[in-house]
Amino acid sequence: MDIATRVWNHKWKIDPIVRSLIDDDFYKLLMCQSVFQSHPDTHVKFSLINRTKSVKMADLIDEGELREQLDHIRSLSLSRGESTWLRGNTFYGKRQMFRSDFMEWFENMRLPEYHLEKRDGQYELTFEGKWCEVMLWEIPALAVLMELRSRAVLDSMGKFELQVLYARAMTRVWEKVERLRTVENLRIADFGTRRRHSFLWQDWCVQAMREGLGDKFVGTSNCKIAMLRDIEAIGTNAHELPMVYSALAKTDADLRQAPYQVLEDWQEEHDGNLRIILPDTYGTQGFLQSAPDWLAGWTGIRIDSGDPATGAEIAINWWKQRGEDPREKLVIFSDGLDVEKIIELHKQFEGRVRVSFGWGTLLTNDFRGLVPDGGLDPFSIVCKAVEADGNPTVKLSDNPGKAMGPADEIERYKRVFELGEQERQEVIV
Amino acid sequence: MDIATRVWNHKWKIDPIVRSLIDDDFYKLLMCQSVFQSHPDTHVKFSLINRTKSVKMADLIDEGELREQLDHIRSLSLSRGESTWLRGNTFYGKRQMFRSDFMEWFENMRLPEYHLEKRDGQYELTFEGKWCEVMLWEIPALAVLMELRSRAVLDSMGKFELQVLYARAMTRVWEKVERLRTVENLRIADFGTRRRHSFLWQDWCVQAMREGLGDKFVGTSNCKIAMLRDIEAIGTNAHELPMVYSALAKTDADLRQAPYQVLEDWQEEHDGNLRIILPDTYGTQGFLQSAPDWLAGWTGIRIDSGDPATGAEIAINWWKQRGEDPREKLVIFSDGLDVEKIIELHKQFEGRVRVSFGWGTLLTNDFRGLVPDGGLDPFSIVCKAVEADGNPTVKLSDNPGKAMGPADEIERYKRVFELGEQERQEVIV
Repeated sequence: MDIATRVWNHKWKIDPIVRSLIDDDFYKLLMCQSVFQSHPDTHVKFSLINRTKSVKMADLIDEGELREQLDHIRSLSLSRGESTWLRGNTFYGKRQMFRSDFMEWFENMRLPEYHLEKRDGQYELTFEGKWCEVMLWEIPALAVLMELRSRAVLDSMGKFELQVLYARAMTRVWEKVERLRTVENLRIADFGTRRRHSFLWQDWCVQAMREGLGDKFVGTSNCKIAMLRDIEAIGTNAHELPMVYSALAKTDADLRQAPYQVLEDWQEEHDGNLRIILPDTYGTQGFLQSAPDWLAGWTGIRIDSGDPATGAEIAINWWKQRGEDPREKLVIFSDGLDVEKIIELHKQFEGRVRVSFGWGTLLTNDFRGLVPDGGLDPFSIVCKAVEADGNPTVKLSDNPGKAMGPADEIERYKRVFELGEQERQEVIV
Repeated sequence: MDIATRVWNHKWKIDPIVRSLIDDDFYKLLMCQSVFQSHPDTHVKFSLINRTKSVKMADLIDEGELREQLDHIRSLSLSRGESTWLRGNTFYGKRQMFRSDFMEWFENMRLPEYHLEKRDGQYELTFEGKWCEVMLWEIPALAVLMELRSRAVLDSMGKFELQVLYARAMTRVWEKVERLRTVENLRIADFGTRRRHSFLWQDWCVQAMREGLGDKFVGTSNCKIAMLRDIEAIGTNAHELPMVYSALAKTDADLRQAPYQVLEDWQEEHDGNLRIILPDTYGTQGFLQSAPDWLAGWTGIRIDSGDPATGAEIAINWWKQRGEDPREKLVIFSDGLDVEKIIELHKQFEGRVRVSFGWGTLLTNDFRGLVPDGGLDPFSIVCKAVEADGNPTVKLSDNPGKAMGPADEIERYKRVFELGEQERQEVIV
């Protein structure tokens, strides 16, 4: 390293965790553009929730350091190169995915204020403001908390102990890659930004996937890494759309239609591989049964909660009922995946549908057992829309362990969406 | 990296494996000083021998590359900093270990010519000239062949595949270190220069030992690494002294005395922890039985062939017979060690003697099983004095698998040194 670089590095007051507004999931930007157009004035509140109560975030992480990192993110703006990339790159085979009016707004956007408090050994971190701005806090906020926790645990380790820790983690990732390499016709992407061990580690994992898997590796959800490494950026849409649309519904009839309205709006903007149904926000079975016929013509479905094989079978039956050929449909599995599950699901569904995987936390944060007392084990932290224009949001999903919202509203949603008994799945990550 | 460094690096015609004349074992320099004084005109021939015939060196390693590396070593001279370190540093608690006349000679010394031929898939590499010069070829020549072989095997691997290879090797070394950390009163040094995987890897292993073992790690045999990392340089003397002394003996009676003459000369120069007997050149049992009484007063013994526990028991009995207290004596094990053996020997002898370990190839070159077909497994390569003033040298050792020399001379030595039946040990490294 030359002297100037070294002196420059010493000028950083902190070692920033998130250094770019596009160190974010691609689908957040896609959704942001939709929201920017369709709901420019909707006011939302996002809240960070640690579902793993045993991990005492406020004891592990210094409040001052957390504030420094969050303040740093608020100072970020889109760089010229990033803007050029978003404007000029091809996404899903399409040029100019991001419209000029959106890009002009995004270039001038700064993230809004945050509200931080300690309570019961946890941080209460909330963000309020315009939906299209607040929504961009989700991934950076999660990444900051995950990485500050990693740093806290690594702080007491020696130089070679650290090298060996990463050596072990690298070996583990590589052994997974070697196993996946043997799976014919595999298609797999990195979905691991939000609960990654650290930025550099995600970047390493993505590159190892590319070298080890070749064409089987189809992209990363992380825009910054996609840009840096010249890799496809991957992602479609998430639960926040139906959650906010539903919270804005004035009547039960409107509520019942809200999740379909999301996809009707989406269909106006996107085609091909971006037409992926996320059916589980209020229960997959009911959602598909009541779905309009045009939805069966979409490219595929993403299975993100509940037993994944059951979810895929439900989708296959639904396509058959609607006269569609499941073999032409794409099923993307993205919930709590690791190698065993990926291989098992691939074996079960390859040939019956087109199978694809979005591999998250157990790709970019599998340090299980590598330090004492599970100190680096991944944990279940989320950052979700909890209010929209003053109304609480609700998520049910296909796993009652992931349900969220006020109890009375959960009951109302269950009634409106005719949700029956659900099987509880353990939430690891 | 700054531009200038990068441009500078591009100016190297080759990537040199040995970059310093003190990238060598400390005991070679100690012995060199002795030889420089006592045998300035003795002419020797050293020869490189690959005892693992299955590793076809000439097929793996390009002759041109090998010549470039050897030529580079011939271009090396002692740098000012290296000379200052040798002159000014404390070795074994002693200042000015190296005399001024020796240092002046060493500062101007260049390594003599080499002779290289291919035969039967192997390289025949020999060095002839003054003993004090030729002897300094041994370690660099071995290190060059080992590392060229590593490079040949690594050449076809991808960037992340390589990272993971080293990650696995690091993890393996660290697991060994973690096991050794639990051994109370352990004393262990790095003796792994000659058959190391590479210079950088030895440097890593030494630093990992220091961090992981703390005071249990007592030093490295490698002078360059000792200097770079501010670590004790470790080592005493080797078989080449009795081998050459013996080859120079004119009668059987002189031959019988030669190994003791070596130590008599050594005793004039060195005291304390440098007075370590290496008894196995022509059989430990006979050597100790016929040894003069003053030798029993020496600090300790190094066990370098045969069954190590047997060797140590022989030494303990011998000390007792000569009225010495074995608990005050140092036993250094240095042959083919790995963690299991180290722990076993420590358990067996700690308390009965002072135990120490010189850990070689399985510290600095344990890549066993990490690439297909054992491509990086260590193998048994040596570089030995084969002639002195025209007479062949002979080594018997406590393992008939390590015997070397012309058959009739081996028989003569066996008769003179009254060597009985020996147990054959497998030679791994």
